[in-house]
Amino acid sequence: MLRVISKEDAVQCVLNHTKPSSCGVENVKLLCSQGRVLAADIVSREDVPSFHRSTVDGYAVFAADTFGAGEAMPAELTVVHEIRMGESALFSLRRGTCARIATGGMLPQGADAVIMVEHTQAAGSLCLAYSSVSPGENVTKRGDDVAENTLVLKKGTRIQTPQIGVLASLGYETVPVFRRPVVAVISTGDELTKEAPKPGQVRDVNSALLTAAATEAGCEAFCYGVVIDDRQLIQKAVEACLCRADIVLISGGSSAGTMDMTVDILASLGEVHFHGIAMKPGKPTIFATVNGKPVFGLPGHPLAAFFVFRLIVSPAVRAMLGLPAEQPLQSGTLKVNVPSNHGREEYLCVSVDAGGSVFPLQTKSGIISVLSKADGYICVPRNTEGYASGTTVEVYSL
Amino acid sequence: MLRVISKEDAVQCVLNHTKPSSCGVENVKLLCSQGRVLAADIVSREDVPSFHRSTVDGYAVFAADTFGAGEAMPAELTVVHEIRMGESALFSLRRGTCARIATGGMLPQGADAVIMVEHTQAAGSLCLAYSSVSPGENVTKRGDDVAENTLVLKKGTRIQTPQIGVLASLGYETVPVFRRPVVAVISTGDELTKEAPKPGQVRDVNSALLTAAATEAGCEAFCYGVVIDDRQLIQKAVEACLCRADIVLISGGSSAGTMDMTVDILASLGEVHFHGIAMKPGKPTIFATVNGKPVFGLPGHPLAAFFVFRLIVSPAVRAMLGLPAEQPLQSGTLKVNVPSNHGREEYLCVSVDAGGSVFPLQTKSGIISVLSKADGYICVPRNTEGYASGTTVEVYSL
Repeated sequence: MLRVISKEDAVQCVLNHTKPSSCGVENVKLLCSQGRVLAADIVSREDVPSFHRSTVDGYAVFAADTFGAGEAMPAELTVVHEIRMGESALFSLRRGTCARIATGGMLPQGADAVIMVEHTQAAGSLCLAYSSVSPGENVTKRGDDVAENTLVLKKGTRIQTPQIGVLASLGYETVPVFRRPVVAVISTGDELTKEAPKPGQVRDVNSALLTAAATEAGCEAFCYGVVIDDRQLIQKAVEACLCRADIVLISGGSSAGTMDMTVDILASLGEVHFHGIAMKPGKPTIFATVNGKPVFGLPGHPLAAFFVFRLIVSPAVRAMLGLPAEQPLQSGTLKVNVPSNHGREEYLCVSVDAGGSVFPLQTKSGIISVLSKADGYICVPRNTEGYASGTTVEVYSL
Repeated sequence: MLRVISKEDAVQCVLNHTKPSSCGVENVKLLCSQGRVLAADIVSREDVPSFHRSTVDGYAVFAADTFGAGEAMPAELTVVHEIRMGESALFSLRRGTCARIATGGMLPQGADAVIMVEHTQAAGSLCLAYSSVSPGENVTKRGDDVAENTLVLKKGTRIQTPQIGVLASLGYETVPVFRRPVVAVISTGDELTKEAPKPGQVRDVNSALLTAAATEAGCEAFCYGVVIDDRQLIQKAVEACLCRADIVLISGGSSAGTMDMTVDILASLGEVHFHGIAMKPGKPTIFATVNGKPVFGLPGHPLAAFFVFRLIVSPAVRAMLGLPAEQPLQSGTLKVNVPSNHGREEYLCVSVDAGGSVFPLQTKSGIISVLSKADGYICVPRNTEGYASGTTVEVYSL
């Protein structure tokens, strides 16, 4: 029997042995930064925009010159200039005059508003303004978008499309990001095959599943491949992976059965911090460090390996990447009773309909196909009566 | 003035001129398929698992042999075999006997249940079973996960980690996926610069923003670069991009102002389907087809270009990728009144707190930095009174 610890203690133990942001920093080109994590606060080095800009096509004016103007009595302004896009409008506008300006154009000194072309009429060198504008109307002032020295993006932000736009607006051509942790994936088990399985054999799912999960989590992941349940071969595999990887995942062979060798190997190479978590699925999970690097022994069953990755490995990855703890995807309302289970925290794949109703999907140990039908998962706490139908639950992303 | 059409009509027009799944199909390695879209239904070619498997460490038994067993009166069974992992257990079990079996092991013929090792005691060649098991208990039957000829994943599914696991379990080493549409991004405007902006100049944000947005949407995107407002140069850029791209995005120069040339160029090269959408931001949007390829003229303002991408371009990309229309991220409750605007559908960046309260973020035309503070956006319909505080609204992903 394993001496199990709670999931919370397991996560805390993993975090205690994980150095935050420990893979270092690299500068990457802005367009290569998608999905990466900012390694520094981004403080604007300039005002954006760097001048007062028109937000419409029209005429730059002294707002006061238009006060009282209306359909019946237009203000008459002399057009003294046409400001072209990109032009430095460094002249000063005088009262009673105006300058034609396009959307995005620079306001000349003195001008404090823009009247839309639709509210004007050209008459020779005059512009007839048929409505009044207030100071600041139709103008983006210098620094209105981002003022110089503003904290714009925080260290630890994941860079997606919006952030790339903001960084481009601030003139960043390269961005400091945390290096991706390198994750090695080893599958163990005499029963695993890459061919069509013969009776007793099963396909190796975990190599692909865990490599994909690590990649999705922001790591650079590689498969070592399948290793049979041989102590020397497994030890060789772990050692080889530790040369290159920051994190090693070994799946299979971590139940308390006869084939259990991983824990002995890890104890001989480094320190085993726990073996066994009060979670379902995922109980026979091992966590060790070897030369300060986290090594996880995951269950061989793919669904269990997947949940252990999401719940136990992922927090370590997020810490190494400088990311905060994951938030639930959404809340929803359970539509059936869910009993609790054996004092172990239980994870259930669920479907969620458009109205937010949550339905647990039937699962059986070893079933992987449920993942293809699920919209997320819920967590049923240990030491409770379970959830009654109608309970609001947090749904997490798979 | 533009003759504007509704956003719904604009999207329908774009879809009418977009050929679904028109970029063809390619086979990629399973681990390279992350984020791609399945181009065929996946039907299992075999039973998973391909034999009756134990879900626990214990003894494979005839369930009937354990009926009535309990702490006080164990059933006595003769251990006739130890089934190793990966072994073809092709022998037949006789009544009154059992076989040691590990989690994941193959049940021999005759055995219909597994009793957990924790409920047994070994006594020489005997196993004492201290509880009864029902037929099927602790067993995953052949085909329980996926039966042969089951539709497992539908064409049009985006492949993420769970799907990769399921495909691996079915033995897929390569996967048929839709080719990524190639998107070319052109920025136009005399005011655009890649250097520190001089007065009147602004940085080119749209090249990076739209390239990132197209990549995130599942395209292969490239920047053509910045082109000044010169009819011949813009035409040359569009023609060059059409040689390589499936979709061309030109931003800037699409307002009705003096610099407006894009619509003329597109009319001369192909057919302009609309110019102007009743949306805010994003009104001066152009849609044309040239040699059957969609070409979009997007506003120069980054925030407007971003919303036009998400609302008008993205449906075309999803159709070409074989994906269904996008669903909202979540629902939330507005915490302030939001007035409607000028008969144009309006898009507002919002923040959403943990309790689902939705707060519109203040925006001004041309402001891009709001994107870095937003959790999503909401849509305020045209021709309404707007939304009252307390209204439940759909929040869409940025």
